Amino acid sequence: MRTRLTERFGLSLPVIQAPMAFVAGGALAAAVSRAGGLGLIGGGYGDAAWIEAQFDIAGDVPVGCGFISFALQERPLLLDQALARQPKALFLSFADPAPWLGRARAAGVPVISQVQTFRDACHALDLGVDVVVAQGGDAGGHGQSRGTMAFVPEVADEIARRGSTTLLCAAGGIADARGVLAALALGADGAVIGTRFWAAQEALVDQRLVGPTLAHGGDDTLRTRVVDTVRRIDWPGRYSGRVLRSAFVERWHGDEAGLQQDLPAQEQRWQAAVAEADMSVLAPFVGEAIGLVQARQSAAEVIASIGADLQRGFRHAPDAAGDS
Amino acid sequence: MRTRLTERFGLSLPVIQAPMAFVAGGALAAAVSRAGGLGLIGGGYGDAAWIEAQFDIAGDVPVGCGFISFALQERPLLLDQALARQPKALFLSFADPAPWLGRARAAGVPVISQVQTFRDACHALDLGVDVVVAQGGDAGGHGQSRGTMAFVPEVADEIARRGSTTLLCAAGGIADARGVLAALALGADGAVIGTRFWAAQEALVDQRLVGPTLAHGGDDTLRTRVVDTVRRIDWPGRYSGRVLRSAFVERWHGDEAGLQQDLPAQEQRWQAAVAEADMSVLAPFVGEAIGLVQARQSAAEVIASIGADLQRGFRHAPDAAGDS
Repeated sequence: MRTRLTERFGLSLPVIQAPMAFVAGGALAAAVSRAGGLGLIGGGYGDAAWIEAQFDIAGDVPVGCGFISFALQERPLLLDQALARQPKALFLSFADPAPWLGRARAAGVPVISQVQTFRDACHALDLGVDVVVAQGGDAGGHGQSRGTMAFVPEVADEIARRGSTTLLCAAGGIADARGVLAALALGADGAVIGTRFWAAQEALVDQRLVGPTLAHGGDDTLRTRVVDTVRRIDWPGRYSGRVLRSAFVERWHGDEAGLQQDLPAQEQRWQAAVAEADMSVLAPFVGEAIGLVQARQSAAEVIASIGADLQRGFRHAPDAAGDS
Repeated sequence: MRTRLTERFGLSLPVIQAPMAFVAGGALAAAVSRAGGLGLIGGGYGDAAWIEAQFDIAGDVPVGCGFISFALQERPLLLDQALARQPKALFLSFADPAPWLGRARAAGVPVISQVQTFRDACHALDLGVDVVVAQGGDAGGHGQSRGTMAFVPEVADEIARRGSTTLLCAAGGIADARGVLAALALGADGAVIGTRFWAAQEALVDQRLVGPTLAHGGDDTLRTRVVDTVRRIDWPGRYSGRVLRSAFVERWHGDEAGLQQDLPAQEQRWQAAVAEADMSVLAPFVGEAIGLVQARQSAAEVIASIGADLQRGFRHAPDAAGDS
């Protein structure tokens, strides 16, 4: 399947793997890229040695690298380090991408800017980024509240209005070919998939968490600040993280002040739960699309399955495709 | 365009007009049905004389009727009244549809059950409703927080797993052919459109509100309980209403207890704002798709435009349709 995204990045299907912090290492990114998608290392909050090691693991396979933009502000050298590896793309989420564009361009690295509001999408278009990702709150992990369904076409209209050459991708709630087709129908050139790759064999996720998480559906997730609070990660106020509900999260959601007051004890409890993979406490960063993910597959299997369904989606299902 | 929905209800395109309380009267419902969609009167909280008058306005044109299910519990005779008009469908949202199914079936009226969680979708499938509508929180008006994008395919999978003959529609964030196509791609048989019909000429909306509302985009809406609180409408706790932000809503959102304490004065302020169409106070029930609605059209123009774009969507845009 060809779209402007596959042409621009030389992909065999219009799928970008979300650069999930701590989760998307070199093995996942390389497996996705090798299979025909765009794989990215999740540079996240920015650990230079870890990022270096993940690029080494990816080896010769061209992969991109993502950063949480406000973390880059604290460690700007990380960007040079990543650009030195000639990543296939630089994927920036959360906070203004403007400070980093010049160096990425000088290095010939395309910039993908993920935004959570129409206002921020307009800013990214003003800056002339290569790809803007409209991320709905349906997504796992950090984000805001716009729903994917109306957000994507609203940005598509703005791109058309400006005659901009910036590409558009959709993120949030997409796990399979249906979501990719919906994204294209909404006016996007491709889709960003997170949660399904969170469950992939190559993801850097404690494998004891995967089975229990896959048993849940989208109703069992919520957006909260509890997990950031207990990990002492200070996110800007407008972002929350979508996670799988746990008894711990249910206890403190809406009572973050109480959690803050009891933080030392609760932090210990959290860390013990990490060691024990205790799902009554832990709350993996997964999106509403967890209800669409049934199995722990390799990234190659995920991509092959989406690719096959994309083909099938166009050929069959006359009822749904309305070819009359 | 044919889908199972158009076949079942004799429509020319797979679009259901949301039965918006106070907004969707007989003129709107009839105009939508006449143009080839499924138009419905918004029976809402249930005013027998009003509903009767709206059916009279619709006249010979077959239209459906929607109810807020928990309001029916207080006035069960409303259902008999509506069924006596032989509506094209009974559209039930919020609260268990079980008590009403028997009478609808006896009257030969198909039941459309709109749900906001996967759990409620399963219950509606257990009951064997004719159509289940998976409504994402992207929608305007009352609802919950599931995003349309992942909710719809999760319900589609459940329908397939059961081998159920219940049809599926998507609601929330859909205003044009792109949203309809996305809904079909996600596995739905059709789409429910609210906000675009809220802005239609036939809608029972104070026309002074429409222009100022259309100037806004999806970023300018939020889910809140403020409007119910000030109107003294006691919704079950799990539902909130998506509205256009106003200074009044911003002031009280998150401080509903404060609003409750000052209710008599604030209620007066609200009612004065209704009289004056004061948009610093009023917060119309519109969804995130407000960013996709550019003009006040007749319902026939809306349907014709969606129909034309649906045709175009399949024939052109090879980049997006990926016909390689």
